[in-house]
Amino acid sequence: MKPIYMDHHATTPLDPEVLSAMMPYLKTAFGNPSSTTHDFGREARQAVETARQQLADWLGAADSDEIIFTSGATESDNLALKGIAYRSPDEKNHIITLAIEHKAILDTAKYLQKQGYEISYVKIDSHGIIDLDDLRRQIKKNTALISVQAANSEIGTMQPIAEIGAIAHEHGIPFHSDAVQALGKLDINVQRDKIDMLSISGHKFYGPKGIGALYVRKDLRLAPLIHGGGHERGMRSGTLNVPAIVGLAKAAEICERDREKENARLLQLRQKLRQGIESQIEHVQLNGHPEKRLPNNLNFSFAYVEGESLMLACRDVALSSGSACTSTSLQSSYVLRAIGVPDFLAHCSIRFGLGKSNTAEQIDIVLDLLRKHVPRLREMSPLYDLAKAGVDIEQLSWKDHDHDIHE
Amino acid sequence: MKPIYMDHHATTPLDPEVLSAMMPYLKTAFGNPSSTTHDFGREARQAVETARQQLADWLGAADSDEIIFTSGATESDNLALKGIAYRSPDEKNHIITLAIEHKAILDTAKYLQKQGYEISYVKIDSHGIIDLDDLRRQIKKNTALISVQAANSEIGTMQPIAEIGAIAHEHGIPFHSDAVQALGKLDINVQRDKIDMLSISGHKFYGPKGIGALYVRKDLRLAPLIHGGGHERGMRSGTLNVPAIVGLAKAAEICERDREKENARLLQLRQKLRQGIESQIEHVQLNGHPEKRLPNNLNFSFAYVEGESLMLACRDVALSSGSACTSTSLQSSYVLRAIGVPDFLAHCSIRFGLGKSNTAEQIDIVLDLLRKHVPRLREMSPLYDLAKAGVDIEQLSWKDHDHDIHE
Repeated sequence: MKPIYMDHHATTPLDPEVLSAMMPYLKTAFGNPSSTTHDFGREARQAVETARQQLADWLGAADSDEIIFTSGATESDNLALKGIAYRSPDEKNHIITLAIEHKAILDTAKYLQKQGYEISYVKIDSHGIIDLDDLRRQIKKNTALISVQAANSEIGTMQPIAEIGAIAHEHGIPFHSDAVQALGKLDINVQRDKIDMLSISGHKFYGPKGIGALYVRKDLRLAPLIHGGGHERGMRSGTLNVPAIVGLAKAAEICERDREKENARLLQLRQKLRQGIESQIEHVQLNGHPEKRLPNNLNFSFAYVEGESLMLACRDVALSSGSACTSTSLQSSYVLRAIGVPDFLAHCSIRFGLGKSNTAEQIDIVLDLLRKHVPRLREMSPLYDLAKAGVDIEQLSWKDHDHDIHE
Repeated sequence: MKPIYMDHHATTPLDPEVLSAMMPYLKTAFGNPSSTTHDFGREARQAVETARQQLADWLGAADSDEIIFTSGATESDNLALKGIAYRSPDEKNHIITLAIEHKAILDTAKYLQKQGYEISYVKIDSHGIIDLDDLRRQIKKNTALISVQAANSEIGTMQPIAEIGAIAHEHGIPFHSDAVQALGKLDINVQRDKIDMLSISGHKFYGPKGIGALYVRKDLRLAPLIHGGGHERGMRSGTLNVPAIVGLAKAAEICERDREKENARLLQLRQKLRQGIESQIEHVQLNGHPEKRLPNNLNFSFAYVEGESLMLACRDVALSSGSACTSTSLQSSYVLRAIGVPDFLAHCSIRFGLGKSNTAEQIDIVLDLLRKHVPRLREMSPLYDLAKAGVDIEQLSWKDHDHDIHE
């Protein structure tokens, strides 16, 4: 039997309605949307343009042309940052972001830094929320872009994106947001929230893998990352992935239709899980903001228990102990470190990512497993013995574990 | 009723066997291959690595790690050229290619040229075949890469890639080949043919859209185009598109299994079409090499008949009058111009791209349509009147039509 899936920040299953919408384009309607000289191509082109309009409407965009299809959010994030950087005049070479952004932002920013761009990281509080005063202070004459995620993939912290957008626009600076985790859950409207670029990923909200988009406000021009043929208004070349584009739009439609009801249900499940953990298990710490977090996210540190060992013990539940993209690394989560979680607690963290398939019964199973395994693993932990003997655990070095494969 | 599909260079339908292989990964096996802490992720990872091995075996690669998954051949071509260019020492800044390459190569080369790289285009003959002596002459101390397509998408001309590989390796220069049109039809073995990088596209051989790969010989390191998370040995970040990767490998397996039989069938159909056109229609010219061309390709100019008008008249057959990627442009084909086809004949060209679904009966239908419409359209053509009156058509200016949206 497969485990209970509780890792919806890493990926989500394809909604069966989405797959149904894709099927005609995986079967008979297989044309290349660029082949507009015949019916096969025109049929595919029509499907793409309908999907583009749906997505534009969903995001509150002014025009369907503002949706640029990509292979996923990693590419979208790269296109947003590099696209602005390479297009900006030489003297505009400063980008402002957060230290808890997705690796697609952070690694791209580091790459740009090596090329001579200046990167500033705005202060965040211990819940991961941006310090808006510090954002204002970081803005300079040469600032080309502000990029702040809508919600964090590990701790679920939601940023005040409309306020960030307002500050950016006060200074005439474009504002990009990686909304991969937020879309389908939060109410985002790019015009109302003054967002100039927004990254989207299909597989994070029950759509297909291998498809994403970047909303790009019409008056912004980006240098393309991928040349050849001039598709997508010259900003992203390559044959359009028609079935996945149709699926992306369908997934958006379903999310929007079910959003309020599903959010309420997820909040209830999460409340049950949180209360269960906090009332039944000792020495736990909630990482991230107590309220301003995605309705499906919890991130707990179970002190004196290695996250990896706990996941192994709870192998009937698919969980994560860090960002899925980096879970093969032994390092403790860079997000938790950035909000000041001590290493010894970061190593004990588990991310719970709830989703459509999860039920109250599954929450009970998870709580049973945690109640059973956390105390048992603690009894095997030398750290727990030391803590009980009064040693200050935070002062012990965990540096051996602290190597980042991405540096 | 849908037209007869005869545009298989632009895209191909997904093979039903490929779709079947993908279905489990579009349904229950939805994990993120990076989430290796649980069964969902490990199952996805396993599927990806199995596919990677299959593709490596198919191409004759030494190691499965040499396969880097991308979103398609346009990205693969970009990664090959920019990846080498940005990774090479400053003094290695020269790339050799052909003027008839796909736009993904040509536009990328032009972009690199703007950044200070030097691009040389090797001479080709009137059939589009590379001049190997000129290739030798173009090689310089600062040459970083030779990139030559295995077969052309418009005229089907096949290049002597093993000979090009040998010349490249004599000089210690990496050799990249865009094999998008050739794969599944020609016998390609990267080790035997001395190919260091090879671009692959799923949807060109009955696999899924939105997936491609770049074979990269193990000792070559490329600068990534897309940063974030360090997937694919640091050369291409982003969540892996598991269903499409599984589909890509399945498509390769089917192509290899059926290759000889299907090639023989296609050759027969093509022979019938070619003989029909040449014996039944006046004033036609075959573009590209009479023999050294893909088994499914024909490219004919029907003098005094605009390609667009002929396609409109033959709307029961899906055809192309140029590269599908650029068919919305009014320009005459850059490939035909590069091999010296005069503008007035280039504008009259039709590409026939045969494929699995095509039958001998369909060839008869196409021949009937051509026999009916070509003479009728000629009667309406002022050029035909002029030609009959003895005017030299080649000297007339077609420049009004000659604007390239990609420049």
